[in-house]
Amino acid sequence: MQHILTREFALEADANDPLKDYRTKFQLDDPHLIYLDGNSLGVLPRETVGKVNHVVEYEWGQRLIRSWNEGWYHRAEEIASKIAGIIGAREDEVIVADSTSVNFFKLAWAALKIKGERKGILSDTLNFPSDIYLLQGLADMVGSSHNIKLAESDDGIGMNLSALEKLVNEDTALLTLSHVTFKSAFRYDMKQVTRLAHEKGALVLWDLSHSVGAVPVKLNNCNADMAVGCTYKYLNGGPGAPAFLYVRRDLQEKLQSPIWGWFGADNPFAFGLQYAPAQGIRKFLAGTPPVLSLSALDTSLDLISSAGIDKIHSKSKDQGQCLIRLFYHFLKPLGYSLGSPKDPEMRGSHVSLRHKEGYRICKALIDPDIGGKTIIPDFREPDNIRLGITPLYTTYNDLYETVMQLKAIVEGEWFKKFSDERDMVT
Amino acid sequence: MQHILTREFALEADANDPLKDYRTKFQLDDPHLIYLDGNSLGVLPRETVGKVNHVVEYEWGQRLIRSWNEGWYHRAEEIASKIAGIIGAREDEVIVADSTSVNFFKLAWAALKIKGERKGILSDTLNFPSDIYLLQGLADMVGSSHNIKLAESDDGIGMNLSALEKLVNEDTALLTLSHVTFKSAFRYDMKQVTRLAHEKGALVLWDLSHSVGAVPVKLNNCNADMAVGCTYKYLNGGPGAPAFLYVRRDLQEKLQSPIWGWFGADNPFAFGLQYAPAQGIRKFLAGTPPVLSLSALDTSLDLISSAGIDKIHSKSKDQGQCLIRLFYHFLKPLGYSLGSPKDPEMRGSHVSLRHKEGYRICKALIDPDIGGKTIIPDFREPDNIRLGITPLYTTYNDLYETVMQLKAIVEGEWFKKFSDERDMVT
Repeated sequence: MQHILTREFALEADANDPLKDYRTKFQLDDPHLIYLDGNSLGVLPRETVGKVNHVVEYEWGQRLIRSWNEGWYHRAEEIASKIAGIIGAREDEVIVADSTSVNFFKLAWAALKIKGERKGILSDTLNFPSDIYLLQGLADMVGSSHNIKLAESDDGIGMNLSALEKLVNEDTALLTLSHVTFKSAFRYDMKQVTRLAHEKGALVLWDLSHSVGAVPVKLNNCNADMAVGCTYKYLNGGPGAPAFLYVRRDLQEKLQSPIWGWFGADNPFAFGLQYAPAQGIRKFLAGTPPVLSLSALDTSLDLISSAGIDKIHSKSKDQGQCLIRLFYHFLKPLGYSLGSPKDPEMRGSHVSLRHKEGYRICKALIDPDIGGKTIIPDFREPDNIRLGITPLYTTYNDLYETVMQLKAIVEGEWFKKFSDERDMVT
Repeated sequence: MQHILTREFALEADANDPLKDYRTKFQLDDPHLIYLDGNSLGVLPRETVGKVNHVVEYEWGQRLIRSWNEGWYHRAEEIASKIAGIIGAREDEVIVADSTSVNFFKLAWAALKIKGERKGILSDTLNFPSDIYLLQGLADMVGSSHNIKLAESDDGIGMNLSALEKLVNEDTALLTLSHVTFKSAFRYDMKQVTRLAHEKGALVLWDLSHSVGAVPVKLNNCNADMAVGCTYKYLNGGPGAPAFLYVRRDLQEKLQSPIWGWFGADNPFAFGLQYAPAQGIRKFLAGTPPVLSLSALDTSLDLISSAGIDKIHSKSKDQGQCLIRLFYHFLKPLGYSLGSPKDPEMRGSHVSLRHKEGYRICKALIDPDIGGKTIIPDFREPDNIRLGITPLYTTYNDLYETVMQLKAIVEGEWFKKFSDERDMVT
């Protein structure tokens, strides 16, 4: 596939891309910007501007409190039903609420409670730190003899399922993993992992933050127990958009939220003094849903559904393989290494390239004085340059130009212009 | 003060109102709408439209992930510092995060943890049910011998401090109350209650949802321990806007959040695998802050600060007294009763009027076919018509017209047009 290595091929691939029209649905007007950070904060869908404005000016501004009766009360469920369609779940198994951290807390606590006699909590060192922190907090909270084990990756990139299997046993209450890991983009086989946990009687909680919207997620098909996920990455919901959670239908009765807020109560507007949980997935709500942010999610979910997650994933895999071939050809000789699995079936939708000068290279990529364009990846300690592929708007030419710039920065030692001292928060 | 009883007096009072110009800062363009539900959902400040749009189109749309470095990372603290100025707290004692329910959960849990040997949790039957539900959940969670006592109000309107005092003892871990109660608007003397709890060694958690922005709150002056509050009522932050929490400076070290999310960690972007809490109030953050909703708060907080909470309260009290005099003159003879304290020093900023046909009367008030205007109060079971006074935009004439309409609805039996079956969620 030598032809990938030219700009001409990249432009031809873009011209033939069946999803190419979707890029126009996003606000990407700056010709000097290449944005490869949709895995951290998705780009603004154009229609979201009008939708948010409608919520502010009409629903809030004009209809005021009446909007609760005219749509807000069920908005968290409506948005959730669109997410359900993307993650292979039934509509009544998903709700949008709170942040990923708070939702993770609720479900992990609920799992530990019903598995009370078991004391083992299992995750891995590739997991997003917030999830690990929350587990540490839960272990501190439930006290006593709970223990957290983190399966170690051999190469810092992927996990051998047998390594995980060894750690799951009859004492394991909860296994929780990122479906796609945040740094290396390693993607777990959800079905197999779920099966091996279930064989030992453990529950599994998946964090879909780095997979939802970019790779297929088939919760029901995998018999998944619980999941949480973020909506401001590939779901393009905007900064700090509310998260979602999933609980398989037959588990909903058994699991209980620790946070008995009124929106999770059976009839919040009866204002009785004794809590009774709502029926079904609503009981995992806590406070009043964030209506503005909820509404900002709508457009992007429709775009993803209309494009189809399989087509999105197919382009993601192809772009990832192009990027990796470019890496081998141009970047490996310059000290870069691949921080992600080569096999697209074991990868999510971003590719990490590692370099000992990774931080300074990121700064050079972003600086428009170097090469004439602002190229935005993100950096993850200690040396990962994450290049996010969002198939609805990432072009092949974006990837080509980025690789050329990564090459030029090291060849010209342009990264030396920058301090290695960390001053970016993300 | 007979002159209050005429429209002329109401119009004159509006003309002389020192805060009258603030009304133009809010989107209240419909001449056929009287909005008395700012205690449930505040009106949209005009400038908020542009501010939200700027966050969507520029900060998210154009600056994308760079906005985390350019302002988002500290936005929860910046907005919180403006709230701190309104509630008599130091800037480093307040943070904006999550919902009121989630914040209440965090602080109540933290209080029970450090008061481990004490098993008593005390609140009252006037409190907002969500807070009671959360306490019930916490008691269920920490298990064992925790008990919840609810002080009972004699008249369903107010609470005798001695009734409360009798229930506080050496076993009380936590006393938690609404500063202003949601139904009757009874306002506690924060200083006295805090003192009586402290005398027995208990911690106090205040819910400021129905007081913040409308009545003075002086947390430091009262030596308050902890507080939470809602921002979409008198703070006009929009539907489901994020809530805030306060922890007195010297308690911050001792109290610990149960939800160890990454934004409450010491250095979230170092991505280490061992949680360490952030210094100070930031440790009570959990997930990624909801940037859109946070930003929507800004305009209103500036308006409140510029008007001054004392002037706002002074007008609130005056309007409340006018409304109550109108009630005595026109409504009491028609079967209405006063569901709020008469004394403005014992009341927040809404007035509840009760009537056995309260629900149907509310529906008639809202219906523009009856009287030509849409008048929006809200209804709270079993018979409370809540009339919210938001001094920045409520006019004396709003109150006059509303009372006239309440009178006409009962005199003409117009409420009979409506079903008594509950179909409003709020």
